[in-house]
Amino acid sequence: MSIVAVGSIAFDCLTTPSGRADNILGGSCTYFSLAASYFTDVRVVAVVGEDFTTEHEDIFWKRKVDTRGIEHAKGKTFRWGGQYLDNLNEAKTDFTELNVFEKFQPQIPREYQDSKFLFLGNIHPTLQATVRQVMNGVKLTGGDTMNFWIKGTRPELLETLKVINVLLINDTEAKMLAMESNLQRAAQRVLSMGPQALVIKHGEYGATIFFREGAFGVGTHPFRAPALPIEEVKDPTGAGDSFAGGFMGYLASQEEINREVLKRALFYGGVMGSFAVERFGTERLQHLTREEIDSRFQVFRELTHLE
Amino acid sequence: MSIVAVGSIAFDCLTTPSGRADNILGGSCTYFSLAASYFTDVRVVAVVGEDFTTEHEDIFWKRKVDTRGIEHAKGKTFRWGGQYLDNLNEAKTDFTELNVFEKFQPQIPREYQDSKFLFLGNIHPTLQATVRQVMNGVKLTGGDTMNFWIKGTRPELLETLKVINVLLINDTEAKMLAMESNLQRAAQRVLSMGPQALVIKHGEYGATIFFREGAFGVGTHPFRAPALPIEEVKDPTGAGDSFAGGFMGYLASQEEINREVLKRALFYGGVMGSFAVERFGTERLQHLTREEIDSRFQVFRELTHLE
Repeated sequence: MSIVAVGSIAFDCLTTPSGRADNILGGSCTYFSLAASYFTDVRVVAVVGEDFTTEHEDIFWKRKVDTRGIEHAKGKTFRWGGQYLDNLNEAKTDFTELNVFEKFQPQIPREYQDSKFLFLGNIHPTLQATVRQVMNGVKLTGGDTMNFWIKGTRPELLETLKVINVLLINDTEAKMLAMESNLQRAAQRVLSMGPQALVIKHGEYGATIFFREGAFGVGTHPFRAPALPIEEVKDPTGAGDSFAGGFMGYLASQEEINREVLKRALFYGGVMGSFAVERFGTERLQHLTREEIDSRFQVFRELTHLE
Repeated sequence: MSIVAVGSIAFDCLTTPSGRADNILGGSCTYFSLAASYFTDVRVVAVVGEDFTTEHEDIFWKRKVDTRGIEHAKGKTFRWGGQYLDNLNEAKTDFTELNVFEKFQPQIPREYQDSKFLFLGNIHPTLQATVRQVMNGVKLTGGDTMNFWIKGTRPELLETLKVINVLLINDTEAKMLAMESNLQRAAQRVLSMGPQALVIKHGEYGATIFFREGAFGVGTHPFRAPALPIEEVKDPTGAGDSFAGGFMGYLASQEEINREVLKRALFYGGVMGSFAVERFGTERLQHLTREEIDSRFQVFRELTHLE
């Protein structure tokens, strides 16, 4: 089944220990949709400026991503510059130019509205809620957020969390949202805010999914997927969005969403995140095959499976 | 088969978000031996002062730990005070009084010398090497070290690493020892220093075991065991030593050491670490049953196993 993804398209200027890249295509929606495109049909909703050319759009088309929801606005595309120095887990932002993204009002094309899966990327929670309202026939909504919204727009975010089925955030965001430093207790508190399931991403240590009692199955046991120890992380940008793309894309490809499916989705999330970081920008995500993906899925499986 | 453990016995003064405890029995050798005692016979080599009473020794005896290698010296036992504030992963040291531990010269009782397993706790690498030399009939030697020795006694440590089969350290120590910030590459570099296998402990994210090509089996694929998200971490002290105790204790209980056994040992390490932190000091490790341990082993297994 198809999935609608709302988020940012950006041009990034990146410096990592492996080198530099200037003005390369990035943004949460870009990483998400390319990663998800290996599992299901993806339809994007985003805004770009006049510097976004057919050459850039071609990167989406080659992966059969539906770009009718990309609004072409007057001005420049969102630009972000950052560098990873000693710590590949955290970027130091050099500059953020919101440009056309500042006034982004997501418009969902009529043709998108039969999609049963929705991913609300990291945008203002009120915009997320508006999109969810338009997409009132969806079966499952995934969502992301970040420290900026957790701190700055908490009441709005708490409203939006009520309509998100699966929230995907990292450790720091979970603890900040829950105002609780113990991860297990933080997870329980976030689940009480609305989501039926919570995916907490641990960067190079994988991710854990926590379930609300009775949601998608029985019990409250969490489940953890590992991340592959990777010898050369060229560029960590987009790892979390690629994780979300693999996770949500796999879910959208399944008939039924139960805990076993969610667990496999967590593994596929890790797999797509691990591919993303092997090259600069979206390069690695543009030219994968499903065979490569499933073969790495097996490696992830063997990484933690006892005989 | 029995295992000889060399390390520290201490009295700890701890402050955690859950409360305080003063002068409670601690030390790497204590946590290690109690954790290992659920799997095999344990023989300890350590030094204590005159404040170490039969009441304290009784904690070892109750777990049938052989204490003939505990030297009773004139003076006071090693004392450590520390607190965990916001970050349960890292202690802030209030004081360290080495006392009798300062002049510790491990003496291996003749009755211990037929043991086939040896664990060299976190002491001066030259002392570790001396013990290994006396125990020249051992089949497998595990070892620990810390930043202090990595920085201060690097040449001596590099010598000792040549006689350690399995080194157990944490992320920071591995990166510091290898002088390399990428974990996968750091692991390869440490393995080139001597050990056949390297266990890197990730705290609340579990642990990874890396194998040298050809050691204990085929290939170089690492293996990762999760840690359980725990609702109430009362006291993180000794988690790493309890991990090592579970890991080494399980190995010593097995006829053959192959990769499957090492993988299961990694899970048992995580299990014992998870019990240790549930109560202050060694309290939880004193009164477990093998059934409780194996039941938690299953929980760990289910935490990452896909159907």
